Amino acid sequence: MTDLRGKTLAGTFFHAPVLGTLEVLEDALVEIDKAGRIATVIRSGDPRHEGARIAASMAGTLVTLPAGCYVIPGFVDLHIHAPQYPQLGKALHVPLEIWLRHTFPLEARYADAAFARKAYEMLVADLLANGTTTALYFATIHQEATRLLVDICLEKGQRALVGKVAMDNPQECPDFYRDASTEAGLQGTRSLIEYVRTHPANEGGLVHPVVTPRFVPSCTDAMLEGLGVIARECGCHVQTHCSESDWEHGYVLARHGVTDAECLDGFGLLTRQSILAHANLINADDMARIVTRGSGVAHCPLSNAYFSNAAFPLRAALAKGVRVGLGTDISGGPSASMLDACRMAVVTSRMLESGVDPALPPETRGRPSSRIDIRDAFHLATAAGGDALELPVGRFAPGCHFDAVLVDTTAPNGTIRLFEELDEPEDILAKIVYTASRANLAEIWVAGRRVAGAG
Amino acid sequence: MTDLRGKTLAGTFFHAPVLGTLEVLEDALVEIDKAGRIATVIRSGDPRHEGARIAASMAGTLVTLPAGCYVIPGFVDLHIHAPQYPQLGKALHVPLEIWLRHTFPLEARYADAAFARKAYEMLVADLLANGTTTALYFATIHQEATRLLVDICLEKGQRALVGKVAMDNPQECPDFYRDASTEAGLQGTRSLIEYVRTHPANEGGLVHPVVTPRFVPSCTDAMLEGLGVIARECGCHVQTHCSESDWEHGYVLARHGVTDAECLDGFGLLTRQSILAHANLINADDMARIVTRGSGVAHCPLSNAYFSNAAFPLRAALAKGVRVGLGTDISGGPSASMLDACRMAVVTSRMLESGVDPALPPETRGRPSSRIDIRDAFHLATAAGGDALELPVGRFAPGCHFDAVLVDTTAPNGTIRLFEELDEPEDILAKIVYTASRANLAEIWVAGRRVAGAG
Ligand SMILES: [Zn+2]
Ligand SMILES: [Zn+2]
Repeated sequence: MTDLRGKTLAGTFFHAPVLGTLEVLEDALVEIDKAGRIATVIRSGDPRHEGARIAASMAGTLVTLPAGCYVIPGFVDLHIHAPQYPQLGKALHVPLEIWLRHTFPLEARYADAAFARKAYEMLVADLLANGTTTALYFATIHQEATRLLVDICLEKGQRALVGKVAMDNPQECPDFYRDASTEAGLQGTRSLIEYVRTHPANEGGLVHPVVTPRFVPSCTDAMLEGLGVIARECGCHVQTHCSESDWEHGYVLARHGVTDAECLDGFGLLTRQSILAHANLINADDMARIVTRGSGVAHCPLSNAYFSNAAFPLRAALAKGVRVGLGTDISGGPSASMLDACRMAVVTSRMLESGVDPALPPETRGRPSSRIDIRDAFHLATAAGGDALELPVGRFAPGCHFDAVLVDTTAPNGTIRLFEELDEPEDILAKIVYTASRANLAEIWVAGRRVAGAG
Repeated sequence: MTDLRGKTLAGTFFHAPVLGTLEVLEDALVEIDKAGRIATVIRSGDPRHEGARIAASMAGTLVTLPAGCYVIPGFVDLHIHAPQYPQLGKALHVPLEIWLRHTFPLEARYADAAFARKAYEMLVADLLANGTTTALYFATIHQEATRLLVDICLEKGQRALVGKVAMDNPQECPDFYRDASTEAGLQGTRSLIEYVRTHPANEGGLVHPVVTPRFVPSCTDAMLEGLGVIARECGCHVQTHCSESDWEHGYVLARHGVTDAECLDGFGLLTRQSILAHANLINADDMARIVTRGSGVAHCPLSNAYFSNAAFPLRAALAKGVRVGLGTDISGGPSASMLDACRMAVVTSRMLESGVDPALPPETRGRPSSRIDIRDAFHLATAAGGDALELPVGRFAPGCHFDAVLVDTTAPNGTIRLFEELDEPEDILAKIVYTASRANLAEIWVAGRRVAGAG
């Protein structure tokens, strides 16, 4: 297949624009404009369908999906530590505060631009091949390597939000990996914002800059305050970690006497464009505060099992109106696939609901009504991620970017096994999210442009 | 690569013969005899190494692995419902007792031999491609379809243990899917044993018959008693489910006044060749009984999250000496890959250790010292599975069958990303188990014969 800008795509589309529902657009037409945005979605029963199909066919712009192929929105990964990709699958047996001692030396290597280029090119290519069309990245403290990451996303065509990590607290950051000073960290943040916004290849706004305090422990108050000012002045996205583990949550309580959410809010870092990673230990007041500010949460179930000491109370947060999406948390989470994040989100919610300790009676073992199902996870990984970022992605609707994945359920080296006589459309989506692998992701498009694919 | 019978394989091998340790056989030679058994393992420092390498080279029997390739034992999957493969990834939102109502109609379809052939060929081919070299299968109640499964395993070369499912209790089994009578179920069991043991293509003993009461609820006492007699008379393996969920555990307590383990033991079904699936809710007495009998447990973390209401207390069971291996529990578990079972075993153990409910204080949230790491999971999925079945597989040691997987970490469509300057041998194994996918499994051998592979 090919570039879909200016084309009409005929086929069956799955998306989940609203939590709890799956929409199957069977034999629909999706018209994509020259900028890669969806112009029209015409369902099979629509009286315009036949005319639009014939018109596109005559204009030579009709692209028809082969049998066994389905289109889903590309995934929105709300939490990735780009420099940690080389340690994916390693160091998962130690607590967060020890794990950081493995991780800081790796991140420090990105002072070397050649190393950074090699690792970042591999990462962005792999994420695109895995169907991640929008990525929210923590980079490192380095200016050159972080600019390289921006360049690579633009080259390869990934929609991305990139932050230079700010970390200046000598108590919690090693000498070999720390902003030279608070001022240097703030200046580096401003400089990256400027770089992204004036990048000649970024006229379409594919890449966005992000104000990125690593987390409260890594930053002095002066840094947090300065970053709050930058976020307000520049109208940027913000990302940081929030109440991830008992240690981290306790650190902020001890230093500031308040929770992470309240602390970050005091520095102006809880905005409608903020994404808080994890948030496992937030309380009811924190949730209310996050809802008031309109901030989003990146739920990262793959890494939570290792580093968070508890499950994120996803259903409670959704019920209160928190905007939640999913993140892989590379490399705290040992997978670069949002499909794995979907699967683990369901599992985690089930284990929170049932509880885990068989020695306890069923009535007190778990937390009732905590479960989500695979459709909900699919919604979180697509439409909800776009909503949390305030970007028009994750749905097949007019005005949205055509960021999408062509799933070939018949790929011989793939792992989806459909049985025509047994599988309803909803089953096909469930099988895709539960059992697809990279070989099934035949084409990946961002803004209508083909950016990767096994096909 | 090719048939390795009568060959010497030179390369780096990973195995975990003992819980808690990983052995890296760097630049070793493994000599495989004409029957596909390992004759010798010669480490790089061994004084015989150079001579053996030269001799094999001169005899034209030396096979040298390319760079970036490693050999691991094939996986032993201790719990698979072969007929359920068509619903992999479906129906995961309902409790066990409802889920069976989705599942029985699917299993009933295997009365149709053409359907059975199509589905079983797909399953066995996929499991081999996923590196499962030994599979313990529940089939269905049907004689013809179950014989087909035996034939297909022999044709494709998978080491397999196959049981005709026995289920005759009209209270718990639907009319359309139940043994015609207790006697018919027993006769069918005997008949399958005879079929497997006299199969002309099974002279090497690749496939074994298994006495298979579905679980206590599905069987009358007469059936359980009769199967116990058959197991003793024929010296067969036994497989069934044990204390899987609150409902199932409670059912047996209500009907028999004792736990599953005690009940099964009373019928002579706890033997040194028995595998009990799940066992999540077994108590300390059950564990002691299982240890005394020498039975094994198939820990199935992928399905436990959906159907078991609690985590299997793996560390406790291992500490007591229970022989535990891993199972996918297709299709209660939504993955056909033992790599996923390994990953989920680690995750489940971590969540049992930390607990899941953030509203509880850390001290009472979880069950301390419950964790395993990825090396432990790798041991369970290979050597421990072989031990539980009393089969000489899962290790690179003289006398063991050469059942193995060639992992190509450089496969471009694969998902393993090594960084030479950063990854120690132990890291490479961790990355393989955490991040490998089907495309990385370049060759799969059973008894030295190539049976599958992406390469
Ligand atoms: Zn993080
Ligand atoms: Zn089962």
